[in-house]
Order: sequence, then structure tokens, then C-alpha cells
Amino acid sequence: MDVIADGSDVLVAGPRGNLWLMKVRSGGELYTHLGVLKHDSIIGLEYGSSTETSKGYRLYLMRPFLEDYIMKGERRTQIVYPKDMGLIAVRIGVRSGSRVLEIGTGSGALTMFLADFVAPTGHVYSYEARREFADAALRNLRRAGLAEYVEVKVRDASGGVEEREMDSVVIDIGDPCSVMDVAHDALRPSGGIAVITPTYNQVEVAIAGLRTRGFIMVEAFETTYRRVESRPGATRPASTVISHTAFIVTARKTLGEGK
Amino acid sequence: MDVIADGSDVLVAGPRGNLWLMKVRSGGELYTHLGVLKHDSIIGLEYGSSTETSKGYRLYLMRPFLEDYIMKGERRTQIVYPKDMGLIAVRIGVRSGSRVLEIGTGSGALTMFLADFVAPTGHVYSYEARREFADAALRNLRRAGLAEYVEVKVRDASGGVEEREMDSVVIDIGDPCSVMDVAHDALRPSGGIAVITPTYNQVEVAIAGLRTRGFIMVEAFETTYRRVESRPGATRPASTVISHTAFIVTARKTLGEGK
Amino acid sequence: MDVIADGSDVLVAGPRGNLWLMKVRSGGELYTHLGVLKHDSIIGLEYGSSTETSKGYRLYLMRPFLEDYIMKGERRTQIVYPKDMGLIAVRIGVRSGSRVLEIGTGSGALTMFLADFVAPTGHVYSYEARREFADAALRNLRRAGLAEYVEVKVRDASGGVEEREMDSVVIDIGDPCSVMDVAHDALRPSGGIAVITPTYNQVEVAIAGLRTRGFIMVEAFETTYRRVESRPGATRPASTVISHTAFIVTARKTLGEGK
Amino acid sequence: MDVIADGSDVLVAGPRGNLWLMKVRSGGELYTHLGVLKHDSIIGLEYGSSTETSKGYRLYLMRPFLEDYIMKGERRTQIVYPKDMGLIAVRIGVRSGSRVLEIGTGSGALTMFLADFVAPTGHVYSYEARREFADAALRNLRRAGLAEYVEVKVRDASGGVEEREMDSVVIDIGDPCSVMDVAHDALRPSGGIAVITPTYNQVEVAIAGLRTRGFIMVEAFETTYRRVESRPGATRPASTVISHTAFIVTARKTLGEGK
Repeated sequence: MDVIADGSDVLVAGPRGNLWLMKVRSGGELYTHLGVLKHDSIIGLEYGSSTETSKGYRLYLMRPFLEDYIMKGERRTQIVYPKDMGLIAVRIGVRSGSRVLEIGTGSGALTMFLADFVAPTGHVYSYEARREFADAALRNLRRAGLAEYVEVKVRDASGGVEEREMDSVVIDIGDPCSVMDVAHDALRPSGGIAVITPTYNQVEVAIAGLRTRGFIMVEAFETTYRRVESRPGATRPASTVISHTAFIVTARKTLGEGK
Repeated sequence: MDVIADGSDVLVAGPRGNLWLMKVRSGGELYTHLGVLKHDSIIGLEYGSSTETSKGYRLYLMRPFLEDYIMKGERRTQIVYPKDMGLIAVRIGVRSGSRVLEIGTGSGALTMFLADFVAPTGHVYSYEARREFADAALRNLRRAGLAEYVEVKVRDASGGVEEREMDSVVIDIGDPCSVMDVAHDALRPSGGIAVITPTYNQVEVAIAGLRTRGFIMVEAFETTYRRVESRPGATRPASTVISHTAFIVTARKTLGEGK
Repeated sequence: MDVIADGSDVLVAGPRGNLWLMKVRSGGELYTHLGVLKHDSIIGLEYGSSTETSKGYRLYLMRPFLEDYIMKGERRTQIVYPKDMGLIAVRIGVRSGSRVLEIGTGSGALTMFLADFVAPTGHVYSYEARREFADAALRNLRRAGLAEYVEVKVRDASGGVEEREMDSVVIDIGDPCSVMDVAHDALRPSGGIAVITPTYNQVEVAIAGLRTRGFIMVEAFETTYRRVESRPGATRPASTVISHTAFIVTARKTLGEGK
Repeated sequence: MDVIADGSDVLVAGPRGNLWLMKVRSGGELYTHLGVLKHDSIIGLEYGSSTETSKGYRLYLMRPFLEDYIMKGERRTQIVYPKDMGLIAVRIGVRSGSRVLEIGTGSGALTMFLADFVAPTGHVYSYEARREFADAALRNLRRAGLAEYVEVKVRDASGGVEEREMDSVVIDIGDPCSVMDVAHDALRPSGGIAVITPTYNQVEVAIAGLRTRGFIMVEAFETTYRRVESRPGATRPASTVISHTAFIVTARKTLGEGK
């Protein structure tokens, strides 16, 4: 039986989609618009059980998933969303055990996914020029139990990186071309690269930059996520959706010259 | 240096997006509309290098990625596409080391992704009622080096499964409600479930079935993948796209009664 | 020169996309969060010119377009959006001079478009069971100068309609099948029909109902509208969009039996 | 009763979505992969009735709609699709009776829609630099009975146009900025403009060009069309869709200076 203890992470799920990710601490209290939840009252309960707030609202006590750590993490930057993570990973050759270079840790959202994918024998080397982002990312990684699979380096990667023979490289910074030579040198031949950018302009620049350096199988895309709402007899797409988060350009390194 | 040997898998990439996934065998030949490639001629070459066909077309010799094994695998059924795999995994609590039950192996596409995600310490238990699908899935898993992380059981799961306390369950069969009680019993409290179906009708039925059994955080969605085409000065979305593959319904098990 | 007079309609366009549609009345005032605009101060100005509010914000004084009357009209119901109107019209055979039956006037949004399309020699006959919707629709039509091309009948059309030999029929009510026989009888052979509904369930029912009655070229679809945001060097799709408004089913009447 | 005569246009609808748009001529024959249809055999039949080919396939004899003339017209260029036409029209102030300038007739697809919308009291002035496109467009307009509402001028509009005080202007040529001053001068103050282009690059350029010239309410967008497939109990989005046809930028002219 999987029981909530002092120090456990709990995803508290209220009615209407309210979610809180918290660490249980003896004596602690969760204050919400639905009333108060005393931590002590749930210590010893099984994950999946429910309780009530001081105002009588039912709250479910769930084990946090990787998606919860990603979506409820400390956020200092735009993040890569879960809808894109799996596709990026398989498209650039990430597998369990891979060694991955990430340039632009940001808040560490994609870093968490990559770390969990390559764990426990692989490793992620992640560069972030701004210390406050790097610190937030590290806190997010620790909370998700993934810090041991990641080395965050607080440094601008455009000056070069130590890593060589990486299986895969991800670039998620404002000016991807500033590190494209660095990425090329760090990547093993036949390895995969992904460039993440919100604008068409950078897509165009990144594609040209990759082709120039001999990368092949260059493909750019975006994914969209559309919720479906359903009551018996009335099922329909949701009225509004997040329409655009980022474009992704992927490619593979060859030993060739480029064009 | 990562060199192609007798027995190596090679993804051969031709011009205009042509791709062949092959196992190198001394004396073998790859016949294509671009001419012939003798296997012996590439043994000893480094991955990422290129060669020419008998007709003078340039072919690149790449290390296959997980996506190549998925997309070029033997296909006996509709498959789950890479665009959906990562989201399914993080949404239902799959992590490195997880134990996952899959009902409906099909051609094993999603199975491969799940196996690589949970590897090397986790495991996938996958049920497939039709032997020819199970056999194809196993061949695909072996080719991708993932068979050791998966147990494929050739049996209709609607009669019950041995697995208990699974971290996550995936249902990908025509009548998902026929195994929903089985899935519920196999899943640990607070575990995540995904139902994959092409039609709205089954989405509606699955959502009702999950709510009845006390699952919460029920969400249905689809993702779309849209390519971007780019030449310098002329970047635009691709003209046609694969618009629909499957709807996915995800939820989490509670100890509650349902409604 | 096209000058604003007492009694003119003006679309007032403020910064950041604020829009007000107003009728100019001597002595009147427009109160906004950007300050006050005295109607008298703009009488005599040319359309396309600008003025300032009491707080110094610049407002442009524009001639209202059909889209403004549609989008800024009194709204008592879900409306059909401009993105769908033109496609519905050409798909069901509406042309200048056509006679169109509409079952379900609602707030009159689509009615306005159809009326403008068939004007001045065609006519729209529109049924609305609820008087408050019919009254709002009439007010909207009058404001847009289109009332003379439309007859709004405050009656439940499921009991039958007088119209015969209509070129085109639109059904936009909750239970489209309740008027499908009525619509069939009112439509001339080879005429076009559109059924508008938000749910997949009604799409399925409507398609079956149309096929049963011998309609052919049955097609169901939805359209989406996606904004693009652009600054020099940074062009990208908008982050969020209205993802779903309605499904539309179109078909054409034959003299055949159906199946 | 609406009867097919010698000289009538007929849309012949076969099974599986086959469509032929033909003019009936005594003695004529329609050859298809489903067999032959003798024109004489359908003269005197009512629109909406059906007949059989020499091979026994059932064909329905339908009155052509505006969409049929658009989609089955002679096509020399990329066309604007019906999904975009209505939105363009209402967004730039086209109404029954409007005077519209079009720069870039192309194959005349959008021209047909605009002509039908403004008919019978309005007019479309359409410039096309290439005579073979202009001729094809005129043939399409005549076939659809719309030629009297359109003046096609075979001339490069970048040298200037005679038209002034147009209600609305559409630009659909490769280099929209080359005629933006011309368009501005031809448009009445507060009038609406649309620029149609397939690429993001031209969207960015057009938006900047419009803002520079004092246009306001600048909005760029694309629409998508997604079919739904339905059998009883199995309704789902179509697998593939036309994902991208064109971007559209719309705006309104002010008397202001621009920025």
C-alpha cells in the first residue's frame, strides 16, 4: 500500500480541475479558495483516497506524475510542453541510456523529460547562461527526483562546450545559430539535433543553418493539442485551445560538407 | 568511432526523403528505384557517411533511431504515432522504472516507446488477442533491442489479467469498455490510464466508463502534426497534413466509488 | 466625401483592438475606459479620420462593415461565425437573387450574411420559435440595413412551413431532424441544405437523416480560424485560438428515394 | 419544374464523389471511367433526377452551384478557396452593391465570389498582367453567368489604376507591396483591403507595409477546413486534410499617416 507520509509529494485534485502540487509537512496547511487542508489530516492516508476541506469540498490525494512536476514546476521562461517532448526525443535519437546535450535549460521542463527518458544509465548535460533560470531548473529537477541524471552548467554555450560524441542535442535559445557550430562539434556523426523556436523567422534561419552544416533529414513542424469535451449525447471539440507554443526543427548530422 | 559492421542496422537516407531500414549482411544487396547498394561496400564505413548507388545517387548511412524502428516497423494494424507517445506516457505516470500494462499490443509501436522509457529497470506487460499481431510486435521489439523489457501475452485480456499494482495502463482495442474493469483492478490507486480510439463515439463511451469507475482528471484530446516547408524567403505550412490519427482519453484511478 | 452625420453608424476603433459600434446622435456621448467621446465632436468629420478622447487616447472613426454588424450585433444565442458563412452559402447554392429558407434565426448573424448575399432581388425566410430571439435578430437586421430582404416568422417550423421551391435551406436548431422533412419539402430538387450543430452526435444523426431522405453529396466539416502575429523579424501563429464553433453538414436534394 | 435543356449546365454526380461539370449539347457524350452518358438521354429530365451510364452506374443530374463553377473552373493558378472567400468579403466591407478592386485576377475564383456577392448593382474591377490568366478567368466568369459584373483589365496594376473610391481592394499577386500605394489611392477612406499570400515572409512584409501607410485593424490569419467522416456509431475527423492554402492579411484605410 502506497501511503502518504511526512515529506511526501501530493497532487491535490479539487473539483473543476483545480490542482495543487505540495510537499506534506507535519503541521503544514494548504490554503485554497475551497477552504483549508491540514497536512496532518492526510498523513497515513493511501494515495488515491480523498478528504474534505474545512469548507466541505472533496479533494483527491494523488501521487504526482512526471507531467505534474513539469506543469507545476517553477516557471521562469516559456517552456516546452509535454505534447512536444516525446516527439522531440524519438526524432533525435534519445533512448534509455543516451547522452544528451541541451543548450538552453530554461525552466528545465524538457530537461526533466529527457532525464527521465535516459535514466538511470544515460545523462543530460544542460547549459543555461542565466543563473536564476539554472537554479529554478535545478529545484524542479530535484523535486522530480531527476537531478542525479542532469548536469546543469551555468554558462553561455556559444563559447564552446566540453561534451563530445553526444547522441542528441537540443537547442532552445533565442538565437539558435549562435551555437550551431558548437552543437555540431558536440554531436556524434549520425546523431540527432532539435532546434526549438517560437517564430517562423528562426525556423527559416535554423533550417538554412543546418543544411549549410551538412545535416540531413531536416524537418520543421509544430504540434497542436485539442481537448474534447463530452457529456453523454453531446461530445465536441473544446471551444478554445492553445494554438501555438513552438516550432521544432529536427535533423541528423552527417560527415558531409553541407550546401 | 561508430562503424557499420556485418549485422548492423542501417537507415539508408536517399534524396527526396526516401528511407530504407535494413540489416547489413555480407553479400547482401539493397534494391531501390535509385539503383543497387551492395552491403559489402558499406561495411567498415562510419555511421553518418555517404555512398553512391549503382546509378550514382548519393545515399547517407545513418544509425536508426527509435522513431525509425517505430515508423519502419512491420505494420499489421493502425499504430499510435510518435506525436502522441510522449504525451500519453507523461500523462499516465510512466517513468523510467515503471511497470505498465498495455491491452492491445497491435503492431507494437507504442509498446516500443513505453519499453524504451521504462528501461532498463521497468517492464511492459502487453496483451494481444491475435497471434499474428503479437508475433509482428515481437519482431519489431527485437529489432529495436527492446524485447527484454516487454512480455507479450497472446490472450484476450477481457477475461482478466494477472498483473496487479501497475503504475499505468494503456487500452488500445476496438471496445475499450470490455476491459475497463480488468484495467481498473490491475492499476494501483492513483495510477494513470489511457484509452486510445479513432472515433468520437468511443471517446464518449470511454469517458462515461471511466467516470463510473471513480477515475478522476478525465481528459480527452487529440494532437495534430503540421509540417513547415522552408526555402530562404518562402516559409509556409505544408499543404497537406495527416489530420487525425486517434483520440486519447486519460484519467487517474481513485479509491472512490465513481458516479 | 463620406461624412459622419447625426444618425450615422460609426465603428470607433481604439488602441489595442478596442471597438465600439454606435449610432451618432447629437448630444450623445460614448463612455469608455479610455475616456469620453462627444458625438457632436465627430459630426462633420470624414470616415477614416481620427479624434481623441477626453483622456487623450486616439480613436479612429470607421464606416461599419457587414462583419461589424454581425460581430457587434445583439447576441441572444450562439452565432454562426463569419469564417463559416461564405462556405455555407456557396456550398448550398446561395447566389445573388436566391430564395433561402432558414430554420432557426437565432440572433440573426447568418441571416444578415445570407440577406446581403441574395440582395436586392432575392429573399430570406427565417423561422424562429422564440420571440425574444426573433426580435433581437430583427433589430440586428434593421441596423445593418438588411431587414427588407428578410421575413422573420415567429413560429416553430417543425409544424410545417409555407415556403416551397426554395433554392437553399439552412437548419440551425438543437434538434435538426425534427424539421428535416419540412426542409426537404420546402427545397426545390437539386437544391442545397446545410445543418449547423456543435456536437459530433448531431452530425452523425443529421448525416443519417439526410441520406435516408435521398440527399446526396453529403459532407460534414468544420473550419478553424488561426491568427498570425507579426513584428518585423518575429512572425508566429497566435498563442490561443477559438478552436471550435460548429460543425456543418451540407447536402443536395435529389428526386431519389434515399437509403 | 426545372428541366435540363440543350445548352444547360449540369453537374453530374457519380458514386464515390465523382463530379463532372458539363454543358448539355444535343448529340454530345460524356465519357467517364464509369461508362458513357449520352446528353440526349437527359434532355427533358428534371434537375435532381438520376440516370445510368452505359455500364450501369447511377449518376445524379444536379444544377451547378457557385462552388461548382469555382472548383471545376479552368485553373491556371493557385486559387483562393471557398473556405476563405466569405471571410475576406465581410472583413473588407464587401456588400451587395459594392465596388471592388482586385489586383491579380488569377483564374478568377475569388472574382466569381465577389461578383456574385456585389451583383447586380455592384461591380468588380480586376487586373491581371498575364493575358492567358485573364482569358481563363473570363471564361470561368461567363460560364457562371457573372461576366457582366466584372471588368477584367489585362495590365500590370503596379503602374497605377483608374479606379478611385473603391469600397474594398483585394491584392493577390506575388509581390503585394509593389501595388500597395496603388491600392491605397484607389480605396476610399475607411475602406477595407485584403492581401493574400502563401508565405509567412510576405505576411510580415504586407503587415509592415500596411501599417506604414496608415492602415489600422491589421489582422493576419489562415483558415483550415477539416472534414468529418461518419457512419452510424463511428464518427471521426478525416485522416488527411488540406492544411494550408493561403494567409490573408486584412486592414482598413484611415486618413492618418501611418507609422
